[in-house]
Amino acid sequence: MTSLPRPAGLSEVAALDQSLRAELQHIIDTKTKPPGSLGRLETLARQMGLIQRTTRPTVQRPAMIVFAGDHGIAAEGVSPYPQAVTAQMVANFLAGGAAINALSRVAGLELEVVNAGIATPLASTDGLVDMPVARGTRNFAHEPAMTSGEALAAMQAGAARVRHHAALGTNVIGFGEMGIANTSSAACLMSRLCGVPIDECVGRGTGLDDAGLAKKRNVLAAALAQHAAAIRPLDVLATFGGFEIAMMAGAYLAAAEARMTILVDGFIASSALLVADVLAPNVREYCVFAHASNEAGHRRMLDHFGALPLLSLDMRLGEGTGAALAVPLLRAAVAFVNEMASFDSAGVANREA
Amino acid sequence: MTSLPRPAGLSEVAALDQSLRAELQHIIDTKTKPPGSLGRLETLARQMGLIQRTTRPTVQRPAMIVFAGDHGIAAEGVSPYPQAVTAQMVANFLAGGAAINALSRVAGLELEVVNAGIATPLASTDGLVDMPVARGTRNFAHEPAMTSGEALAAMQAGAARVRHHAALGTNVIGFGEMGIANTSSAACLMSRLCGVPIDECVGRGTGLDDAGLAKKRNVLAAALAQHAAAIRPLDVLATFGGFEIAMMAGAYLAAAEARMTILVDGFIASSALLVADVLAPNVREYCVFAHASNEAGHRRMLDHFGALPLLSLDMRLGEGTGAALAVPLLRAAVAFVNEMASFDSAGVANREA
Repeated sequence: MTSLPRPAGLSEVAALDQSLRAELQHIIDTKTKPPGSLGRLETLARQMGLIQRTTRPTVQRPAMIVFAGDHGIAAEGVSPYPQAVTAQMVANFLAGGAAINALSRVAGLELEVVNAGIATPLASTDGLVDMPVARGTRNFAHEPAMTSGEALAAMQAGAARVRHHAALGTNVIGFGEMGIANTSSAACLMSRLCGVPIDECVGRGTGLDDAGLAKKRNVLAAALAQHAAAIRPLDVLATFGGFEIAMMAGAYLAAAEARMTILVDGFIASSALLVADVLAPNVREYCVFAHASNEAGHRRMLDHFGALPLLSLDMRLGEGTGAALAVPLLRAAVAFVNEMASFDSAGVANREA
Repeated sequence: MTSLPRPAGLSEVAALDQSLRAELQHIIDTKTKPPGSLGRLETLARQMGLIQRTTRPTVQRPAMIVFAGDHGIAAEGVSPYPQAVTAQMVANFLAGGAAINALSRVAGLELEVVNAGIATPLASTDGLVDMPVARGTRNFAHEPAMTSGEALAAMQAGAARVRHHAALGTNVIGFGEMGIANTSSAACLMSRLCGVPIDECVGRGTGLDDAGLAKKRNVLAAALAQHAAAIRPLDVLATFGGFEIAMMAGAYLAAAEARMTILVDGFIASSALLVADVLAPNVREYCVFAHASNEAGHRRMLDHFGALPLLSLDMRLGEGTGAALAVPLLRAAVAFVNEMASFDSAGVANREA
């Protein structure tokens, strides 16, 4: 996949400024602990310091944006749940009863729910950020899911939501999603953008049985063959994507531009990152890969990013739940850097050289 | 290793009451998420419900007790740090400057530091639970580290600290340790209690180089050979243990008796659990194995318990730091069970059967 010029209107993502690296490492290494003994927390602290350009990184007003959208491909029977569940789950988010609500409360996350393009009319939009691109995407078994203009508009809308939170002081952000059939979108994005055979990208999603899995594979293989000409990143996104995925792709770019630490959730969230990453490869330097999902294909996608996930808890729910669980690890990382004594300041003897 | 009658005065540990298992599983399975999709959080929620005998488990006044003690074996040069570091680090704990202080604050843990038997005089005992069995153990390269009476007294002291917290309402507890050279104790306990060759139990501890590691292996192999007659659990503990390890072993038993959820930290903490487990095998049903330490031998010890650790973050610090990091996962587990809507209550369509 050749990286092409970024379309106008998308965020600029600078390479991570490395100028504080040595100073950060020295601070980490002189804390009262054997060198390296805090493992991944040390890596996290250094990364957050570099992103924030400070030796005293913080977790400020961490936020979770859940983008919800419907998918025309759902008509092909690629999910065991009916399409109406997308709207029903959004109502559940707004009422506070979903997994991401509970986990956001535990993590101290500001939770925002965005209607990126739900097909079913919503009973209430109280508390919803209501900015649908359309009432669901078209069925990419037959035609591109969206136009290039719709894809770009969705990316810009996602970026706008991130800038809203940046203005409120957020420096750590995670993105979640809800959209019946969106593992189908994600699998096609992965297959085309990573050059991986579709069979290695398709999983059981919310719980397909063997017959359902075989059908999903066939539907997606046929769709990829039909849209063989879609190879430029924005075309791939428009052809196979979802509005929630496109918004998330734009959100990643804006979050990196705002020098936020970005918590990457599971399979769908990583597929949106594929799009952002091919447009602006520096984006991954701002990312913390929160967890390894049990959805088939996610491990391979993590390998594509050279990513070592923080958590591996056999989860496959989406909504941003894996990202939410990683927030306390970020808090722990900044806490040790800011609060621990050094060997000198504590009067503790260092190792015998 | 034959399980022998438990010495008088130690806690009784009942098998986990399974009567709520089906009801808990039904509650978990009807939450608004695909069945099983919260992975390990679902297992945790079920375990905590069984331990607490409720379908609404909680995390109440979670506590971390760090037991500190010195080891005669340190005289053999098995650690790169001088023995005085134990007392210096205890001063650091009391001043709030160590890793476990920072991580306990993040996790919302009540932190208690216990002098189980430090060799170096302490400049101040303000804030310390000061109950040393003696000023460090004897050098088990030459003689048993402690008497059977000292071992039992230490176990009872650890149990008493747990009962103190139980009376204050604690239902989740973790144990940490500090003691220069205590990976040597832990390796010998593991070798003798698990029947594993010492070379597979010995690691670099706080950071031995290759020569140091070879020396440590030789010292411990010789000590094990010298004390070949020590095979009964309490004899093994008395011969090779530390006061902090013995207190922790007693604390595990008391915590299980009080039906607490127990967070098991890394290599040393798991070696103390080996002692508790051989005396009262039900204890492991109350345990959550918080993390896999990078100390060589810990993975094998986890296998011995049939344990799948929650976290794997390349840490090897001790102090209870791995256990502290797992607290938010317990909070997440009880939050989803208590706060999430069911498909019925949220009006969300379940999967098409």
